[in-house]
Amino acid sequence: MQQPPIPMARKIRMALIGGGGQAFIGPVHLAAATLDQRVQLVAGALSSDPERGRQAAAAFGIAPQRAYDSYRELIAGESELPAEQRVDFVTIATPNDSHFEIARAAVQAGFHVVCEKPMTTDLGQAEQLAAMVKERGVVFAVAHPYAAYPLVRQIRQMVAGGDVGEVQAVRIHYIQGGLRRVQPEAAQQRAAWKLDPYRMGPSGTVADIGTHAFHLARYAAAFEPVEIACQLATFHPVRPLEDYGHILMRGAQGNLALLTLSQVTHGRLNDLTLEIDGSEASLVWRQEDPNVLTVRRHGQPVQFYECNRRADYLEPQVQAVCRLPGGHPEGFLEAFANLYAAFLNDLGDRLTGHAAASPGTGYPSVIDGLEGVRFVEACISSGRSGGWWTPF
Amino acid sequence: MQQPPIPMARKIRMALIGGGGQAFIGPVHLAAATLDQRVQLVAGALSSDPERGRQAAAAFGIAPQRAYDSYRELIAGESELPAEQRVDFVTIATPNDSHFEIARAAVQAGFHVVCEKPMTTDLGQAEQLAAMVKERGVVFAVAHPYAAYPLVRQIRQMVAGGDVGEVQAVRIHYIQGGLRRVQPEAAQQRAAWKLDPYRMGPSGTVADIGTHAFHLARYAAAFEPVEIACQLATFHPVRPLEDYGHILMRGAQGNLALLTLSQVTHGRLNDLTLEIDGSEASLVWRQEDPNVLTVRRHGQPVQFYECNRRADYLEPQVQAVCRLPGGHPEGFLEAFANLYAAFLNDLGDRLTGHAAASPGTGYPSVIDGLEGVRFVEACISSGRSGGWWTPF
Amino acid sequence: MQQPPIPMARKIRMALIGGGGQAFIGPVHLAAATLDQRVQLVAGALSSDPERGRQAAAAFGIAPQRAYDSYRELIAGESELPAEQRVDFVTIATPNDSHFEIARAAVQAGFHVVCEKPMTTDLGQAEQLAAMVKERGVVFAVAHPYAAYPLVRQIRQMVAGGDVGEVQAVRIHYIQGGLRRVQPEAAQQRAAWKLDPYRMGPSGTVADIGTHAFHLARYAAAFEPVEIACQLATFHPVRPLEDYGHILMRGAQGNLALLTLSQVTHGRLNDLTLEIDGSEASLVWRQEDPNVLTVRRHGQPVQFYECNRRADYLEPQVQAVCRLPGGHPEGFLEAFANLYAAFLNDLGDRLTGHAAASPGTGYPSVIDGLEGVRFVEACISSGRSGGWWTPF
Amino acid sequence: MQQPPIPMARKIRMALIGGGGQAFIGPVHLAAATLDQRVQLVAGALSSDPERGRQAAAAFGIAPQRAYDSYRELIAGESELPAEQRVDFVTIATPNDSHFEIARAAVQAGFHVVCEKPMTTDLGQAEQLAAMVKERGVVFAVAHPYAAYPLVRQIRQMVAGGDVGEVQAVRIHYIQGGLRRVQPEAAQQRAAWKLDPYRMGPSGTVADIGTHAFHLARYAAAFEPVEIACQLATFHPVRPLEDYGHILMRGAQGNLALLTLSQVTHGRLNDLTLEIDGSEASLVWRQEDPNVLTVRRHGQPVQFYECNRRADYLEPQVQAVCRLPGGHPEGFLEAFANLYAAFLNDLGDRLTGHAAASPGTGYPSVIDGLEGVRFVEACISSGRSGGWWTPF
Repeated sequence: MQQPPIPMARKIRMALIGGGGQAFIGPVHLAAATLDQRVQLVAGALSSDPERGRQAAAAFGIAPQRAYDSYRELIAGESELPAEQRVDFVTIATPNDSHFEIARAAVQAGFHVVCEKPMTTDLGQAEQLAAMVKERGVVFAVAHPYAAYPLVRQIRQMVAGGDVGEVQAVRIHYIQGGLRRVQPEAAQQRAAWKLDPYRMGPSGTVADIGTHAFHLARYAAAFEPVEIACQLATFHPVRPLEDYGHILMRGAQGNLALLTLSQVTHGRLNDLTLEIDGSEASLVWRQEDPNVLTVRRHGQPVQFYECNRRADYLEPQVQAVCRLPGGHPEGFLEAFANLYAAFLNDLGDRLTGHAAASPGTGYPSVIDGLEGVRFVEACISSGRSGGWWTPF
Repeated sequence: MQQPPIPMARKIRMALIGGGGQAFIGPVHLAAATLDQRVQLVAGALSSDPERGRQAAAAFGIAPQRAYDSYRELIAGESELPAEQRVDFVTIATPNDSHFEIARAAVQAGFHVVCEKPMTTDLGQAEQLAAMVKERGVVFAVAHPYAAYPLVRQIRQMVAGGDVGEVQAVRIHYIQGGLRRVQPEAAQQRAAWKLDPYRMGPSGTVADIGTHAFHLARYAAAFEPVEIACQLATFHPVRPLEDYGHILMRGAQGNLALLTLSQVTHGRLNDLTLEIDGSEASLVWRQEDPNVLTVRRHGQPVQFYECNRRADYLEPQVQAVCRLPGGHPEGFLEAFANLYAAFLNDLGDRLTGHAAASPGTGYPSVIDGLEGVRFVEACISSGRSGGWWTPF
Repeated sequence: MQQPPIPMARKIRMALIGGGGQAFIGPVHLAAATLDQRVQLVAGALSSDPERGRQAAAAFGIAPQRAYDSYRELIAGESELPAEQRVDFVTIATPNDSHFEIARAAVQAGFHVVCEKPMTTDLGQAEQLAAMVKERGVVFAVAHPYAAYPLVRQIRQMVAGGDVGEVQAVRIHYIQGGLRRVQPEAAQQRAAWKLDPYRMGPSGTVADIGTHAFHLARYAAAFEPVEIACQLATFHPVRPLEDYGHILMRGAQGNLALLTLSQVTHGRLNDLTLEIDGSEASLVWRQEDPNVLTVRRHGQPVQFYECNRRADYLEPQVQAVCRLPGGHPEGFLEAFANLYAAFLNDLGDRLTGHAAASPGTGYPSVIDGLEGVRFVEACISSGRSGGWWTPF
Repeated sequence: MQQPPIPMARKIRMALIGGGGQAFIGPVHLAAATLDQRVQLVAGALSSDPERGRQAAAAFGIAPQRAYDSYRELIAGESELPAEQRVDFVTIATPNDSHFEIARAAVQAGFHVVCEKPMTTDLGQAEQLAAMVKERGVVFAVAHPYAAYPLVRQIRQMVAGGDVGEVQAVRIHYIQGGLRRVQPEAAQQRAAWKLDPYRMGPSGTVADIGTHAFHLARYAAAFEPVEIACQLATFHPVRPLEDYGHILMRGAQGNLALLTLSQVTHGRLNDLTLEIDGSEASLVWRQEDPNVLTVRRHGQPVQFYECNRRADYLEPQVQAVCRLPGGHPEGFLEAFANLYAAFLNDLGDRLTGHAAASPGTGYPSVIDGLEGVRFVEACISSGRSGGWWTPF
């Protein structure tokens, strides 16, 4: 299993805001943060319903005096604690509409932050937050865990190193069926807030899963669009926001990217596929089968790269994040833990007074979060115009 | 193996025009036409080079006196033969630019026709041909064999029968890498005419494989566009025509279709995938693994329908075209033979004076060919405009 | 498509014995034999029921005077025809118990033969037949089409060329579920004779599919056993013969082979898998996905060899039998046609007076058929003894 | 994420013995034990090299005073601590030859135990240990994590509930290539003790991976052998123990099981496949793709059951151990955590004075460990005899 590069003499202290309801995302943040035994959860404001929040805190092993009723109380309370008890970072796992105000308060108080995506529901807020993070110098990560799978990092290295040649086309298909499950009368359901524009913000599927796809295009394939055209649709009968979309992007060199998004495809779970066409090789990777990367070169047999810490054909830093011997499947949780590990490396450097070797790399930064919010706004703008091209 | 519905007392006589070169398409037409033992190849004009044409004819077992030097001689020569010797139909397997003039001549002379796609390189020609076919009453098929796979017919039946509910979205990805192989200096190569706009017509990849994808959307998913937007690119360094494209289509009910086309993706062979999102079920079918159809419905295990003549869950007419017991892989050749079988059924009815049970079904008609040419023109038009929406 | 190495001035004439019933095997022999346009079916004795045989003959396009009522009449009648009309070879596609007497009669009369497996139901008969074939000098093939898939030939070449090192272990799993379908009351069903020891001979599953697996071990992996141990079982409630078995084999160098056979595994179709462990590489091939061969070497990415006539990493003779461009699936019929092509090459050499380049290679010979019958006897013998080791 | 059924007011305290070297197994036990936030590692004797043990303890966050130099010191030291500090259980992750003496000492001192497999290297030791565990009443688990995958539990329920009918045949193939990597000169390598009979005990591959396969047959398929025959081989040039084997087993009702084991198949990682043939259905599950279970029934489409907490077609207790929404891959670590969760449920009941709802279920018990050792002995005995049947 992965070891931290700079051992801290103590565990890093975490607070969790949101995540105490029925959704899976709170426990996942906790499990991912603690997988490598470097973090301890010590405080939380886990629900907008204080009673439920306290119950969840007890189940998570948080001491009662640090089970806060709101994020405001948490930030105030922790700020007053002595430095050797105070939390080091907060993870924000609330519905979209509250990300900004919580992140702003945390950053202002000097806490480091892991924030769920989309970072904010509004571009102005995202820009404001990015400026504050820079000014306050805190470590800030946005939760795009798919980019932290070992073989996605392998792709990034292969693209950066020229191994696939010029990236000419990128196709990302992100196909889910989860919204088929949401019935009109089921407003109390787990995912029901995802139907509510007041909680979601102006975008549904683009914000919810399109931001992951967009980050993946940027991170893995180094694709940066200069123009975006977006076609959106709502197929679910009671959904007020889009649940389906095609997003076309043009890069500066005439390279193309396509994102296909659906949350209404019966029975498809979380089928995120990345295809890269380079002038020297083509690549395919699927999130649901994440330990295989298919590499094709003209005139050669198809190659399967497997996630395997002993596979010398992988980049060393990729081998290093394969926690188990090959053939012992690693999944979403390990990917998420890789994101936390990179964040914690930076944070550990900060806390121990070291200069970070390469600060802000290895996890999605506040700038990546800002780009994601810009992307959502461009898509919605193009989509409303009937799909015309919008400069990015 | 499939039996003809109305046994002919004799074999049906076939002529082949083109197909005598190194390309695989001529022998494939012959093998597909003769697989069910209903057809005999008796005449040919197999090459634009008469000497090569005669050699190929000998290899195909055509008697020397019926190995013609040109399609004109073939049509003239066969027309003069007594009815009991004359060929019944001609298959046109020449480069795109000659389809029209050959098909026109054959139809005018009263021969039935199987024509390679795209049917013509120009919409006016296609309309003229469709009118002639109607007037002369000949049986005319266009070679879209992918639609003739048993499980594609199963999809069509499931869509028509309401089994998938309302078709909301269709995604067809047709990804090849074959053009990576074509080098600038290799003008003499097998596929070199596909680089030549004088032989190909105004479109490259859209005409070459996009027409198959478009026909599949119409045939399998009953998708008929009212608007098309198309983004084209040329990534191969010496190709004068597009080799990559995204085609968006809107249907009359707000339903959407996406076609993704590539001929420059390293090492991808003939990867044609069809995905249909219905309100009641979603479907996935892949041409490279054609004997499996994946069916998903909310809350149920994923189902794999397998091509199997004894699988009672398949439509009876689909069982009937599974020639072998399940698990004995059937492929492209059998699909192509299914197209011929449907064509020959109609032709057999015509030749024996029966009224066809359901004329013009089961194979792509001249109207389907015409729609394909319209599609190419709409794509090229939208592509040249930078991807704006074009009414269809 | 594959061309014959020595063009015959005429088509080779075929007779079919058996295969006129509901079973698929008769039409498959015909389609496979004629796929390359080198063969014409001119005579048949297609059923033990003369009326049904004549009807089938008409459907197969056989002239009434050559639709014989029995194999005896066929051999007598054809023998009396002038050489330029007489059939060149007969294909025997009858139930197992009649293979020997028909093959013997055909060989005695000087006809070349393609015979279904198992070649005979008794070892003495098989030895007698092998001696007669040698004496009469006829070309004789046994129908093991699985060995004729292009990538199985690739495996054979890789083993022979040392590419996989020393073959240490071979595992062949042949799993079907077809017998689950056979109900007690359904004695009239297609496969019912496979329940009848009088028609099958002393062995069920071992004879029916084990002989294919055994031939594959010998052909692809060059595995020759010196000892066999066999564990048999009958799980189907009314089957008098074995329908399940494990067969262990030891080679002379301590190498091992395992054959796992089932015909009672619900819903499994024709799942024949071959795995070879060499000292330098390991191989996996699956008949239901026959166009891919998986090659693994220590420390390298997994490689997928694809059936592709343009794949230069394949052996030239393997490229040559990939009839279609990669990605156009080829299946069982093409494999069977490869067997016929090799047989016809030898036969063509014989008929044209050429010395065959490499006689008896490329298709299973009468000696291979004899080995298969020996294998069945060894398995039954070991199985009855409770699974003790039997010298081979 | 899974919650404990009876919340403890405190975390359960764990000690780790062994696991501090380069091997992955120590960190995996720790990560699995702590994944659900119920356990805290407080003590360890992590290496036979005390200095390395102390370094590892620091990296694992163990306080220096509880980083012991040997298991004896650990058991003595912890026994002297007050109950509210003392560890509750020890995990034994040392080489095989020391399992017995450590487990015996721990059980004698009243500690609960998780022990790596094989439980002991000798049957007498295993029997002695089982008796001690019963007498002392401690909770004791053996580390067979593959049986703790959610869909393996689904299989067990389907078998127990009669959903697959009578289990007629079981096939388990466990194919690895890891030993290909071990070079003669590399005695210091991670897995080198697996070449050493003094550390391994009398068996190599059977003990190492065969015990997992055997447990899976018993747990998932309820298969209990009455006779075993085993064929062993050593293909690796310097390995003193078997690295390959076929194991045949007969059950009391004439049902059969086959285990195929290899550690020398180039490039195969950890390919453990389970196939069950029942009279009503057949099942296939693969450890390397653990979130899919293939179910086949006669005449129906193939069904894929997916690990998904919202899939109502799964057994409720299986849904409950799918930690993440479907499509977020869960792997080996989660399976191992499921084993710990079941162990901790029993342990929590014990510690809180509750009667366990169903003690000893949900994880492999000391009796399962004993059966595994019996299995190894039977295999070695049969293997040495040349593969004769041995009563079990």
